[in-house]
Amino acid sequence: MTKFEEISPSDFFYRNKEIAGFENPAKACYTIVREFLENSLDACELGGFLPEIEIYMKSVSEEEKRLRIKVIDNGIGVPHDKIPLAFGKILYSSKYVLRQHRGIFGLGGKMAVLYSQITTNSPFRVISATPNNGYISFYELKIDILRNEPIILKRSKIINQNGWHGLIIECEFVGDYLLSKKKIFEYLFQTSIAVPYAKIYYQDYEGNALLFKRKTDKMPPIPEETLLHPRGVDLEMLKRLIKINPSLSLNRFLAKNFQRIGQKAAEEVLKLANIEFEKPVSKLSEEELTRLYNVMKSYPFKRPSADSLSPLGESFAIGIKETFNPEFLSYDMREPSSFEGHPFIVETAIAYGGDIPIPEQNEINLFRFANKIPLIYDSYNDVSMKVIKSINWNVYKLN
Amino acid sequence: MTKFEEISPSDFFYRNKEIAGFENPAKACYTIVREFLENSLDACELGGFLPEIEIYMKSVSEEEKRLRIKVIDNGIGVPHDKIPLAFGKILYSSKYVLRQHRGIFGLGGKMAVLYSQITTNSPFRVISATPNNGYISFYELKIDILRNEPIILKRSKIINQNGWHGLIIECEFVGDYLLSKKKIFEYLFQTSIAVPYAKIYYQDYEGNALLFKRKTDKMPPIPEETLLHPRGVDLEMLKRLIKINPSLSLNRFLAKNFQRIGQKAAEEVLKLANIEFEKPVSKLSEEELTRLYNVMKSYPFKRPSADSLSPLGESFAIGIKETFNPEFLSYDMREPSSFEGHPFIVETAIAYGGDIPIPEQNEINLFRFANKIPLIYDSYNDVSMKVIKSINWNVYKLN
Repeated sequence: MTKFEEISPSDFFYRNKEIAGFENPAKACYTIVREFLENSLDACELGGFLPEIEIYMKSVSEEEKRLRIKVIDNGIGVPHDKIPLAFGKILYSSKYVLRQHRGIFGLGGKMAVLYSQITTNSPFRVISATPNNGYISFYELKIDILRNEPIILKRSKIINQNGWHGLIIECEFVGDYLLSKKKIFEYLFQTSIAVPYAKIYYQDYEGNALLFKRKTDKMPPIPEETLLHPRGVDLEMLKRLIKINPSLSLNRFLAKNFQRIGQKAAEEVLKLANIEFEKPVSKLSEEELTRLYNVMKSYPFKRPSADSLSPLGESFAIGIKETFNPEFLSYDMREPSSFEGHPFIVETAIAYGGDIPIPEQNEINLFRFANKIPLIYDSYNDVSMKVIKSINWNVYKLN
Repeated sequence: MTKFEEISPSDFFYRNKEIAGFENPAKACYTIVREFLENSLDACELGGFLPEIEIYMKSVSEEEKRLRIKVIDNGIGVPHDKIPLAFGKILYSSKYVLRQHRGIFGLGGKMAVLYSQITTNSPFRVISATPNNGYISFYELKIDILRNEPIILKRSKIINQNGWHGLIIECEFVGDYLLSKKKIFEYLFQTSIAVPYAKIYYQDYEGNALLFKRKTDKMPPIPEETLLHPRGVDLEMLKRLIKINPSLSLNRFLAKNFQRIGQKAAEEVLKLANIEFEKPVSKLSEEELTRLYNVMKSYPFKRPSADSLSPLGESFAIGIKETFNPEFLSYDMREPSSFEGHPFIVETAIAYGGDIPIPEQNEINLFRFANKIPLIYDSYNDVSMKVIKSINWNVYKLN
């Protein structure tokens, strides 16, 4: 007889840690640094604060590969009553909105709590202050993995004397620092190029200290939450929007909930789908819904707005210039484009000379970023690498 | 103000479809074929039935890329009252046991339901009969994605006249068959090599029909559920086992719950961890638990048992021989080994001549399998490819 079983979201990710980058002690070590740094950068940028982030990696037991990490930022913090769920309940997050942000599926912080608990049995420590709130919160947490609920071991509040805001997290975990160190350094270095407006300090127990100074005080504008583009919508999303706006007439529903649909486009779409303009959305039959969806997929709407995006822009050129001081530097940002209703912007820069490290014969230094995050793994298989290598650089008098 | 939100497991995978292989219509098409074939193979093997599987791919609308897939197997079916949850609730599965099986995290079938619903608004049809049960079940299902609950649209039972058992599933989805066809054919072909005891028939709307005949009547033995190896255990697992056996003394607890721990090893482990033998497990302090865990991680236990594994064995050689009729064939299975307490077995075969397709100059045909599943993507970056290419085949009089 086959046994069927339901497991909690925590239990699922506990069993499938590789999805979130925790498949072994080396990868886990790298992932923990990356996730906390990215969460900190997001928290600073959302508040409009120039990021100042410190990361300390200590060794608790070299034999057991037990490490302790502490990360300090000056971001918007996490509100007192949200801390237990934000760190102790998987699938509870502030990242489930339509706006560009970093991080793996809003899982990273919680996976670090989970991983540190299952490898060292130690709690996760959080110190948090939101701006202008008058107090600082302290927590010690674990996760009840079977029930996907936070376990609060300690909780307190003190008066915030000097107006500090930000987040401090600390945890112990089993990690292979020797195997992950190089990737961590490379990751920090490339991040510092992409976010030249951040000051990042990293210090480990081997005596390495990396300081990436702030190179500019200008931050890119904060990305906005936007309406969906009709091309990016599937039937599930359409049904959710209908549930929220049951009494709207169809033409008003379309104009209100989507970008690039004005009164005229709404009427054309409904004509093509053969549905009455004034029908309340809640009265749509399943067949009409499917017809509406099919027209929305094929109608020639204008391209999606890029307001929800936050390109690196000028920062990118500043980052490269200040880091490498190159003889030649060219930066370009393409017009926003879109794939299946989701907008994106391609940014590229090319540089040579100055302090750029000289690559091996026939190789190049390729730094790739997606969503402002350096892509450290697999650069040699990247399509950009293949394109760059296929270019005849002699024509440009470059070998 | 940052908005925090909790989402259901269905909603998480709806938002992150790429985790389960549904990132675009081409990949989704390939994944759906693969998931259903693998579920069918598992269902046949678990019942000890020689697999007979039929897959039909039809086109509903070429313009909208709307496809209909139907898969028929002769496996153990799904019990009547389990069908709604087994296909309509994510994180509910029969695959959450300690035994080798195929498939992505026990998600595949449900993701197909979800994907077909969000792209075509059509229900998922299931016909199922478990062996010797006297009736056949019919269902039409959707998923309530926000609540992660099945929606039952139709349900009925009829008398099972001729004792048929197995599962028939049918669904419509938006898929790019032109882009995925080649990979699907390759996947079916390689699967047929690994499971020569299966008969697999595939037919598409373009007139392609692939029949992979059964090449042997011998099936590998069914893998068994096994006890955990102490090396593969983390603190979470240790705590769960303690909760289930609260009153056992520690030495009995260890001997009962783990493979490779007899009375003697149990006593040595407890001595090293400095814990009383007779202490009931529920009385362990957090410090003692951590000490016990650390000793379990480092104690030289015997390697894990491979009883939970199901190597291809003889089938593999038969599959290659019957498929390619090679001039030369050599097969080898290594002794079981383990990584972090998880057992594995390496099997390899090398062949030339006969009907093996001649690869391009300097290339080889490399078929890789993991967990009996062909790995279709990225074979050129595989370490096996690099090793094979680095061998000087001239020494063996092969060019």
